[in-house]
Amino acid sequence: MSESGQHHDCDVLVIGFGCAGAAAAYEAAVAGARVIIAERASGPGGSAAQSGGEIYLGGGTGIQRACGFDGDDADNMFAYLKAALGPHADEEKLRLYCDGSVEHFEWFRARGVPFEPSLYESPAWMAPTTDGLMWLGENAWPYNTLARAVPRGHRPSAPLFAGGVLMEKLAAAVAGAGAVIHTDTRATDLVTDGAGGRVTGATARKFGETVTYTARRGVIITTGGFVDNEEMLAEHATALVGHGKVSDGLDDGSGILMAQKAGAATRRMSSVQVALTALPAALVRGMLVNARGERFINEDVYPGTFSEAAVLHQPAPYWAIIDEKGYEDIPESDVWGVRPKYAAETLAELETELGMPPGALETTVATYNRHAAEGADPYFHKDPKWLRPLTGPFAALDPRDGFFGMAMETGVNGFTLGGLRTTADGSVLGLAGEPVPGLYAAGRAASGLHGEGYVSGTSIGDGTFFGRRAGKAAAANPAANPAGTRPGDPA
Amino acid sequence: MSESGQHHDCDVLVIGFGCAGAAAAYEAAVAGARVIIAERASGPGGSAAQSGGEIYLGGGTGIQRACGFDGDDADNMFAYLKAALGPHADEEKLRLYCDGSVEHFEWFRARGVPFEPSLYESPAWMAPTTDGLMWLGENAWPYNTLARAVPRGHRPSAPLFAGGVLMEKLAAAVAGAGAVIHTDTRATDLVTDGAGGRVTGATARKFGETVTYTARRGVIITTGGFVDNEEMLAEHATALVGHGKVSDGLDDGSGILMAQKAGAATRRMSSVQVALTALPAALVRGMLVNARGERFINEDVYPGTFSEAAVLHQPAPYWAIIDEKGYEDIPESDVWGVRPKYAAETLAELETELGMPPGALETTVATYNRHAAEGADPYFHKDPKWLRPLTGPFAALDPRDGFFGMAMETGVNGFTLGGLRTTADGSVLGLAGEPVPGLYAAGRAASGLHGEGYVSGTSIGDGTFFGRRAGKAAAANPAANPAGTRPGDPA
Repeated sequence: MSESGQHHDCDVLVIGFGCAGAAAAYEAAVAGARVIIAERASGPGGSAAQSGGEIYLGGGTGIQRACGFDGDDADNMFAYLKAALGPHADEEKLRLYCDGSVEHFEWFRARGVPFEPSLYESPAWMAPTTDGLMWLGENAWPYNTLARAVPRGHRPSAPLFAGGVLMEKLAAAVAGAGAVIHTDTRATDLVTDGAGGRVTGATARKFGETVTYTARRGVIITTGGFVDNEEMLAEHATALVGHGKVSDGLDDGSGILMAQKAGAATRRMSSVQVALTALPAALVRGMLVNARGERFINEDVYPGTFSEAAVLHQPAPYWAIIDEKGYEDIPESDVWGVRPKYAAETLAELETELGMPPGALETTVATYNRHAAEGADPYFHKDPKWLRPLTGPFAALDPRDGFFGMAMETGVNGFTLGGLRTTADGSVLGLAGEPVPGLYAAGRAASGLHGEGYVSGTSIGDGTFFGRRAGKAAAANPAANPAGTRPGDPA
Repeated sequence: MSESGQHHDCDVLVIGFGCAGAAAAYEAAVAGARVIIAERASGPGGSAAQSGGEIYLGGGTGIQRACGFDGDDADNMFAYLKAALGPHADEEKLRLYCDGSVEHFEWFRARGVPFEPSLYESPAWMAPTTDGLMWLGENAWPYNTLARAVPRGHRPSAPLFAGGVLMEKLAAAVAGAGAVIHTDTRATDLVTDGAGGRVTGATARKFGETVTYTARRGVIITTGGFVDNEEMLAEHATALVGHGKVSDGLDDGSGILMAQKAGAATRRMSSVQVALTALPAALVRGMLVNARGERFINEDVYPGTFSEAAVLHQPAPYWAIIDEKGYEDIPESDVWGVRPKYAAETLAELETELGMPPGALETTVATYNRHAAEGADPYFHKDPKWLRPLTGPFAALDPRDGFFGMAMETGVNGFTLGGLRTTADGSVLGLAGEPVPGLYAAGRAASGLHGEGYVSGTSIGDGTFFGRRAGKAAAANPAANPAGTRPGDPA
């Protein structure tokens, strides 16, 4: 099969070569299908390659055990995720995801993804080290009351943005399994056979020319979400309008729209992940407040969790309030270049600077201090190890300053979680809930595990986990017509 | 044309006979089109007939002027609605709506809808009188700083549920205009011509038999929202899962799904209206708090506004906290049968009863009282006329008790605001933003004016306003084929 021709024939066409596409293509190829991946960029990777690379895995993985955490199992993992990704998480998918998590971890290892057997302890968005394990909110209230607290943030061996290492290994595994990769190839439409509405291929554009594909067993959409499509955001996910984008710049929803034109239904199109660039190490030692100077969450949750609580539910702007001692206590490696925006001897001065109601910060800090003196946080239950009455001088840190001096308009970045409605095997469902024959999807082009909550690692996690299932299902799908039958197929 | 046959021919088929369907059918018939309305219930009315009947109208209507409010105009109305229905309200539709509001009011009057020239002053969900005008949040902060505060809640002459009066008059107008009404007729699918994808009719079921319709100029979907479809709620509008429904029981999204199968796009499917059954007259004299005993809004906003602030953004359960004097000050007509659930001499006792963090209510009330003693509410800006330090004994009212003794599981009712994507003329748009030829929609089957906010009266308001526009547009749409040409059509 040559990439240069105008038409290509395969069993399974995968559209998009991020983590979900890689997982789908690998499994389909290993199952014996002739696989082509059409990727519009000039190489593999997608948004996953530019991410922190966290993969949410647990239930007793080798890395968990090597780090001394023997107390996890699938039920415990399920209890955590049901709370952290809920309410309204997809419990069927979640159950499969937790039950299959140890095997999925081993799958990454077998593909050569390196994980170091050490834990990064500090509260952070991403580990600045090569540690293979980190906390993703499991040790924070209320989650630590609902499940045994064990860390499940698995990280390929690289500081900060470890997604590149992950995708390098997965892309190599895909090539090794025999899938053919067509880069610079932008799929434009699905091809449907007139009779049953079965998806039998796709058309694409490559350097101005049309390329057509016949996919006899199935087409798998793994094109990512739609954070880069302003019109789709305005129509469906207004929470991200005007905010920054966590993507490779190509998450324009094209795969979702293609599938909808072929009869697919969408699901939870308003769901988003949001990241407030507030410094976790400062928040745990101080507090996060809204525009009125009010606390609203225990600051030691995973940063995505305080971000959602702030951006989706509290009036902006948001501030990290800390005292001098707290700021000085932050290890240099956890400072991320964040300096105070305002400093003042008294809270009365600081709240005036911040335009808050008179007495707002004084009231909030007085309540916090009264309880902290007793080692308690009865409103939000921050871990007592972080509790200490705050004393002047005080400072306010502004999320809009970003990290490492990168100023941001709103201090918020995000991506979309809604997408195509799929079964647990990746089959795309139509408007009446029936499968669209021959069509599969995974990753952020699909609606996955998530309910109202998000935890880092669950996007690469469900993209690869359900990408694998979609790849297997597509490879096992009966061929669309006899011409597509492979040697060895049952007659 | 007979209702008893198996096939019917018309120019414009309106599916659904609530307020939007009535407005559309009336205008189409007056424009000379042969109109049939297919309604699945046994008579007209829809959810509008069971509602409070408020219509959001302003810009200087006769009733506003008769009540002494001369200061309104379209720009002032726009400024209020842009804030109250936003962010992310549809500004093009909103502009048309405000510019056309006085004419729209006169249209209701000309259809015989009675409005009395008197104002109901008290904060309330619905007026228990026949007054023709009420406040819908215009006089509350921050709206009273963004636009001149004038009331715009226009009400047909009936106490409480005035929607029945409204729909009685509109249904009579529709019949008078010559539209043919087919009741007990449940549309099941749209009919599309193979060539251009133009919608040319529909099929329906009536008492077990199939009825087909040819609509040569257009089909208008006015079937309402989808609050009665549990599967659609779970897929798209999880905020309403588990809550009560504001509907006639038939808002099952069938029209939205029919249109999607014909290629229509949807918009803002997660947007909802929510109503917390908290007593406005108690809240303004006391306070509304969340599960942690925290205030979060000025309690003198329109009840829909505090409901959204609570249900969509604050931890449940919610409580109205009031003192004995405040409760006794409520006029009997504003009590709505709501009695205290808990009473206590001290806030310490009351917060314990309510399971709040220790000191929570004490802290909140102390802050409130300190400011109230100075006639100020620097956090939320409740009108000073309601501000007074609260003194024991105290009571807590539970929204789950409902009104008039009707206990409710969650204390929340709602309906959906998302639906088909339409132009300002009601033309339904497809996935690529192109019109679906021959297809129109209005009312809660469509996405209307609303952004993140909702105000009572804007649902009947935009349903009738854009229903009228859709009716006119469909009547003026060139007939699908020559056989459908009416005498007098241009050759």
